Amino acid sequence: MVIDSHGHVVAPMEVYAYQAHLLASRGAPRQHMVRPNISDELLEETLKGQLDLLRSVGTDVQLVSPRPFHMMHSLKPEKIVREWTMFTNDIIARQAKLHPDVIVGVAALPQSPYTDLSACIEELERCVNELGFVGCLLNPDPMEGEGPTPPGLGDEFWYPLYEKLVELDVPALVHSASCSSPRESYTLHFINEESIAIVSLLESRVFEDFPTLKIIVPHGGGAIPYQIGRFKAWRYRDKDAEPFEVSVRKLYYDTCNYSKDSIELLLKVVGSDRVLFGTEKPGTGSVADPHTGKDMDDLKPVIESIEWLTQEDRNNIFWKNALAVYPRLRSHLKTE
Amino acid sequence: MVIDSHGHVVAPMEVYAYQAHLLASRGAPRQHMVRPNISDELLEETLKGQLDLLRSVGTDVQLVSPRPFHMMHSLKPEKIVREWTMFTNDIIARQAKLHPDVIVGVAALPQSPYTDLSACIEELERCVNELGFVGCLLNPDPMEGEGPTPPGLGDEFWYPLYEKLVELDVPALVHSASCSSPRESYTLHFINEESIAIVSLLESRVFEDFPTLKIIVPHGGGAIPYQIGRFKAWRYRDKDAEPFEVSVRKLYYDTCNYSKDSIELLLKVVGSDRVLFGTEKPGTGSVADPHTGKDMDDLKPVIESIEWLTQEDRNNIFWKNALAVYPRLRSHLKTE
Repeated sequence: MVIDSHGHVVAPMEVYAYQAHLLASRGAPRQHMVRPNISDELLEETLKGQLDLLRSVGTDVQLVSPRPFHMMHSLKPEKIVREWTMFTNDIIARQAKLHPDVIVGVAALPQSPYTDLSACIEELERCVNELGFVGCLLNPDPMEGEGPTPPGLGDEFWYPLYEKLVELDVPALVHSASCSSPRESYTLHFINEESIAIVSLLESRVFEDFPTLKIIVPHGGGAIPYQIGRFKAWRYRDKDAEPFEVSVRKLYYDTCNYSKDSIELLLKVVGSDRVLFGTEKPGTGSVADPHTGKDMDDLKPVIESIEWLTQEDRNNIFWKNALAVYPRLRSHLKTE
Repeated sequence: MVIDSHGHVVAPMEVYAYQAHLLASRGAPRQHMVRPNISDELLEETLKGQLDLLRSVGTDVQLVSPRPFHMMHSLKPEKIVREWTMFTNDIIARQAKLHPDVIVGVAALPQSPYTDLSACIEELERCVNELGFVGCLLNPDPMEGEGPTPPGLGDEFWYPLYEKLVELDVPALVHSASCSSPRESYTLHFINEESIAIVSLLESRVFEDFPTLKIIVPHGGGAIPYQIGRFKAWRYRDKDAEPFEVSVRKLYYDTCNYSKDSIELLLKVVGSDRVLFGTEKPGTGSVADPHTGKDMDDLKPVIESIEWLTQEDRNNIFWKNALAVYPRLRSHLKTE
């Protein structure tokens, strides 16, 4: 079985027209917050390409979340962020209901930087308990590059959310949204925010205070597995500190990195029991590599071509780790 | 010959006491800007450890610049940044005069975010023409994590400096300073700023406008060689664009990364003709790896243990690339 743990919604244009409308109107008068009618037929039509794609690369199940660069967390007023988040989560829930054997929902949270986390916790509960979602995205920078950000993910600021994640037994996938900085695209911001998130979490007491909390850092973990020597050196200075190479194994990572050499490095640094198969197909890597003619996000043959992986390693990556990190996923599967 | 292209000054405590004094007084009354007397004997005493260390790991020559996290670029008033920068450059010039066969100067620039680049250009000229320095540091974020930063290094904002670098035939080593963000240490900020710098430069016209400009990105180039798949994918979408794997070879990188697997990945991605030997010894990596008992910044045996490198590759890394990128270095060397 192949579970792609990192997918984002493919939705009809009507969905994004509604986002533009919400944004342009700022959600007032309230008549502007009337959702468009989107039929099951239209959803199916838009989904068809995605389902064909997944089948063509051997993916059995995909965990699907809202598309991060569209999350617009920093925009005001907060009510449009909340409405847009709930609307896109609802679209995914409908897709999952249409194709329960392939699509499983992962929620976005309405992370406005201008409010506390209570709306996020409420939406997480709704998505898990009512919509059958198995996890959520967590954006460490809801200011979207306009700073000042909330404290790092290692800070107690995030504890109410961590408590709820543990209670519901669902993980969070660290994923920033867009980025307004003229010198940093959102796609690069993802990577930098992942590095900041990893160091903040691993320098904190979070995993002592929440030993069963599960956090996934996608795209191979930003810069950190590649820069591990730097962080190991800092830890070695303190004889009582846990070595950084031990700490990195408190998190999970995914293969959504599009380079075989880098995925091999990741697996060597964190171990095959900490890496989930993830491709974000269709997404950033959905373009043919002119040297091979194959799409860069067709990662199953890439993993299979890593000769030193055992069958157990491959099972871990392709499905076992996903089931361990997303315990609620098991009930969605036909068979293992 | 082994040239360590990435070293930072080891200076007596009197030097840092002067920094604290400048900072506490804000440089006024002007009587506070009277430099301490530091004798050659004291400089030699402090240097001895560094020279012994370099000898012990087989380094013949080290390019030495001010210690980046001490550059205090964002602090006000600008005159203390300028005085501190000139003072530390002068200390390095004196060390280089005492040990011309080992120490070669690389300048810091007084990059106050509150002024234009004219003081930087003036100090660069002074260091190269009067002090015999062979290059300079370039901090992409003189706000030190307090944003808003200057535009990315691909922006014409930096062109007056690039013109002077080309005219003097000296390279710039991208290196941020400290970082005031509570969620990002300076050591992690280095890495993130390097990723931002690489993408900004390679998405710009800088190397069309300055074909002979030479820029080095240290620490293995932040996240980018590890995340190259992501940036290749974006470029492949545009059939007329230069592939990203070609663009990355417009920059130079160094080995100051402390992980053999990562250095191998860097060499595979950018080529041995683009990677300079650099250790920053003594610095972040100057601590024993408990698994080997060896200092993490003892990188010569690490490079030598990469079996697939040819003798030509090793020569490139250990000295040839340094001479190519720092043309003024040649006149400092006794022999090749």
